[in-house]
Amino acid sequence: MSGRLIGVGTGPGDPELLTLKAVRAIEAADVVAHFAKAGNGSNARGIVADLIRPEQVEEALLYPITTEIERTDPGYVSAITGFYDEAAERLAAHLASGHTVAVLSEGDPLFYGSYMHMHVRLAHRFPTEVIPGVTAMSGCWSAAGVPMVQGDDVMSVLPGTLPETDLARRLGESEAAVVMKLGRNLPKVRRALAAAGRLEGAVYVERGTMAAARHLPLAEKADDAAPYFALVLVPGWAGRGGA
Amino acid sequence: MSGRLIGVGTGPGDPELLTLKAVRAIEAADVVAHFAKAGNGSNARGIVADLIRPEQVEEALLYPITTEIERTDPGYVSAITGFYDEAAERLAAHLASGHTVAVLSEGDPLFYGSYMHMHVRLAHRFPTEVIPGVTAMSGCWSAAGVPMVQGDDVMSVLPGTLPETDLARRLGESEAAVVMKLGRNLPKVRRALAAAGRLEGAVYVERGTMAAARHLPLAEKADDAAPYFALVLVPGWAGRGGA
Ligand SMILES: C[S@@+](CC[C@H](N)C(=O)[O-])C[C@H]1O[C@@H](n2cnc3c(N)ncnc32)[C@H](O)[C@@H]1O
Ligand SMILES: C[S@@+](CC[C@H](N)C(=O)[O-])C[C@H]1O[C@@H](n2cnc3c(N)ncnc32)[C@H](O)[C@@H]1O
Repeated sequence: MSGRLIGVGTGPGDPELLTLKAVRAIEAADVVAHFAKAGNGSNARGIVADLIRPEQVEEALLYPITTEIERTDPGYVSAITGFYDEAAERLAAHLASGHTVAVLSEGDPLFYGSYMHMHVRLAHRFPTEVIPGVTAMSGCWSAAGVPMVQGDDVMSVLPGTLPETDLARRLGESEAAVVMKLGRNLPKVRRALAAAGRLEGAVYVERGTMAAARHLPLAEKADDAAPYFALVLVPGWAGRGGA
Repeated sequence: MSGRLIGVGTGPGDPELLTLKAVRAIEAADVVAHFAKAGNGSNARGIVADLIRPEQVEEALLYPITTEIERTDPGYVSAITGFYDEAAERLAAHLASGHTVAVLSEGDPLFYGSYMHMHVRLAHRFPTEVIPGVTAMSGCWSAAGVPMVQGDDVMSVLPGTLPETDLARRLGESEAAVVMKLGRNLPKVRRALAAAGRLEGAVYVERGTMAAARHLPLAEKADDAAPYFALVLVPGWAGRGGA
């Protein structure tokens, strides 16, 4: 009898934004796993810290790479693939011995989450369940009180890592947009928004729903780097004065 | 001392997908409001039924229009605007007398939710909070076990009400997409996916996370109408055999 793999969405930061289902799954798991950069804490692990009991086994899956090198670099690709393969085998050993493994995932697991790398390696080998979570973008637009989309509005989710011209074109074509993965891409994202005529109305949200959360019009945010936990909202409906 | 308006996301259907914060807000509210079509039950109200106590006041905000007429029809626009104005005034009366009003919203409140019509009318007049919820799309891709987006993937959220050529163009330009508001738009959405070369891999999800949930490849779904609670997922990463 093999154990069950569970991808658990922890929501964007506020522990109160865990679902009832996520709380129960974490409490019932034999093994609780999380991803982190070596030396950094895991945000997902921090969100659920109060739920974890000493008798549970923890697996910290530590990324081998701390400095950010280009993701297109073949060395990066092979190091990271090897890391995910080994991480999956560590979880597979627990699953094969009948233990339930909960993999924590910030926000929603199947939406740009590291859990996905375990899912594609293990879901065909072991019984698997995914517990959705409140995404970072939902947490951020709720915290900022920004009505995003209504009626026929189209919303684009854009990684800030895209080339500037690509960002500008896509921003110009959707009523609403969310730009994720801001960090050092902030100046580029701002230029793309300006080129698309969408800078006005854009809202910058940092650490949404976490203790140090803040949000402000992007036009008022200094043009330096943003922290890892930051994104930009381009509201659709509200931006048109929805009523 | 006026009361507090709270937009409460109830998640996509499974009551276990309520957040801890939503449960507490509903339990503590003086007034619990929901939107519904006259004669239909409210899905959001159904999700939280077990939390509501007899001493709480309930406000059922019933849409005046049951048959679907074109939303561009001036008669529709004025009837629906008048309805939202009146509904907001009913809630404002409770708020003005110091009562906390929780407005239930299926999924996430600020993402195509009826609550938004109350938010834009009341948030500048009363203290307001929005509690994000798990969106229908997150519930659906988790239930179907479909990894949606990773890395530089762009995801488009498209209402199925858009014109066919518009849908096809946008489907062709994004790694991943979610088509909401399927219902009687299903045949059109299927044609748009075929035109964009994205029919293969598309997943149809009906009543995701609810009791009667099911999902299947869209190519295998009969080309009749879909129920109101249905959407189509076009996976990005998994569709490319992500690893
Ligand atoms: C790898 S993605 C993970 C997304 C997550 N799985 C979700 O469902 O939203 C990380 C990006 O999410 C965004 N993010 C995550 N949490 C956030 C928060 N609390 N506030 C603002 N942005 C956040 C940032 O843009 C960050 O670069
Ligand atoms: C008015 S929108 C509400 C969206 C909601 N606020 C959210 O956060 O997802 C209604 C549409 O959401 C989709 N939907 C809502 N719940 C669903 C479910 N449980 N399964 C499939 N689709 C659902 C359908 O496409 C439906 O037409």
